[in-house]
Amino acid sequence: MDLKKTILIYSGGMDSTVLLYLLLSQGFTVECLSVDYGQKHKKELKCAKSICKKLSLTQKVINLSSISYLLSSSSLIDSNKPIPEGHYEEETMKTTVVPNRNMILLSLATARAIDSKANTVSYAAHSGDHAIYPDCRESFAKSMDAAMQLCDWKKITLNRPFVGMSKAEICKMGSNLEVPFKDTWSCYKGDTKHCGRCGTCIERREAFHLAGIDDPTSYAKEAPSIEQMLESNWKLDEL
Amino acid sequence: MDLKKTILIYSGGMDSTVLLYLLLSQGFTVECLSVDYGQKHKKELKCAKSICKKLSLTQKVINLSSISYLLSSSSLIDSNKPIPEGHYEEETMKTTVVPNRNMILLSLATARAIDSKANTVSYAAHSGDHAIYPDCRESFAKSMDAAMQLCDWKKITLNRPFVGMSKAEICKMGSNLEVPFKDTWSCYKGDTKHCGRCGTCIERREAFHLAGIDDPTSYAKEAPSIEQMLESNWKLDEL
Repeated sequence: MDLKKTILIYSGGMDSTVLLYLLLSQGFTVECLSVDYGQKHKKELKCAKSICKKLSLTQKVINLSSISYLLSSSSLIDSNKPIPEGHYEEETMKTTVVPNRNMILLSLATARAIDSKANTVSYAAHSGDHAIYPDCRESFAKSMDAAMQLCDWKKITLNRPFVGMSKAEICKMGSNLEVPFKDTWSCYKGDTKHCGRCGTCIERREAFHLAGIDDPTSYAKEAPSIEQMLESNWKLDEL
Repeated sequence: MDLKKTILIYSGGMDSTVLLYLLLSQGFTVECLSVDYGQKHKKELKCAKSICKKLSLTQKVINLSSISYLLSSSSLIDSNKPIPEGHYEEETMKTTVVPNRNMILLSLATARAIDSKANTVSYAAHSGDHAIYPDCRESFAKSMDAAMQLCDWKKITLNRPFVGMSKAEICKMGSNLEVPFKDTWSCYKGDTKHCGRCGTCIERREAFHLAGIDDPTSYAKEAPSIEQMLESNWKLDEL
């Protein structure tokens, strides 16, 4: 059992990349676990791969696309449903929820932890996710932690340092840890550049703005300006 | 939300088949979820399929063989490791444990429950499993139940009626429910007949014996007789 080894659920987005850098700064041996669950595009996975390569870290990608029919009510994997635009808090964003995604990922990461003698699993759920994702709440994380401690004869615990933090606070921490934000991916759409107007793009831009950190992301030229965003109070449909 | 709909984790073995018949007798609409996790043989899955067909039930099979490398320490999926013979309680049987199997299956069944508007997931963990499988204990089931109730905005609960019962008691219940035991599969080996001497075969034979019910299973002709079993107190290595 390696007390300083953790399995990180790693998407290649901002939050999990900051967590990766945090864990490394804390002396953890990190194994990254990325999941291909049949998303419409693989930009995030490519970013995850390239960051792991740069850091010489082991990354495993689990392909769950064979079970994506299970999750067919989500617009992220059902190509017949359009991806909603607008702020995360809006009702339309609820269709981006993949049912029970975090429990599935945590259960697989825990299996990997047992098999590779790590004693923790880490995930980057944060307080900004709570309103939209029930499986990012501390109450959920706490129950999963309890189940993970009981699923094997040796305890696996769930490391969730961001669960009480906002995305802006994570952004500030990442800046201090010199996270290469420009190499991370958030946009739900898989174009060359971030679209700048889908739920995760708006959340990303808002986090940089609130953290007072220059946003190094390259957005599509049609993207609304930060001034337009502020003016509409981040509600695109009022633009 | 269909209050009488449940997703059953269904292997095609004795215990989950008795649970299937119990749920049907209780008026549940049952959807069966079977998992191909890269087992060495598919006999159990074939039995599951044929019983579902006979009962005109929906059965979904999830193929997790793409993640079997995650679980590579288990002899059930690693073809380089021999399947141990002998009684379940023996130390050698511990190699048949697939890490975190139940949490993975429960997380997938919960996703399916959310997607198909069922409000419970059912699994057939029983007290005889506790010594060998940590993820069959009530404490584990209770934590998972708590996590399942929090993973979505609507509560999913974990139905585990056998968690305090022995396999012999399940066998007796199955007999009352007229479960076609001969159509179920237990043996870890995938030969034409049950080998009669691996861990699950011994457990199966012991359950029928203790329940005082005729065992309709057809065992290989090399299998030890029930008298030999009793004489050795179910310890094959003493034969």
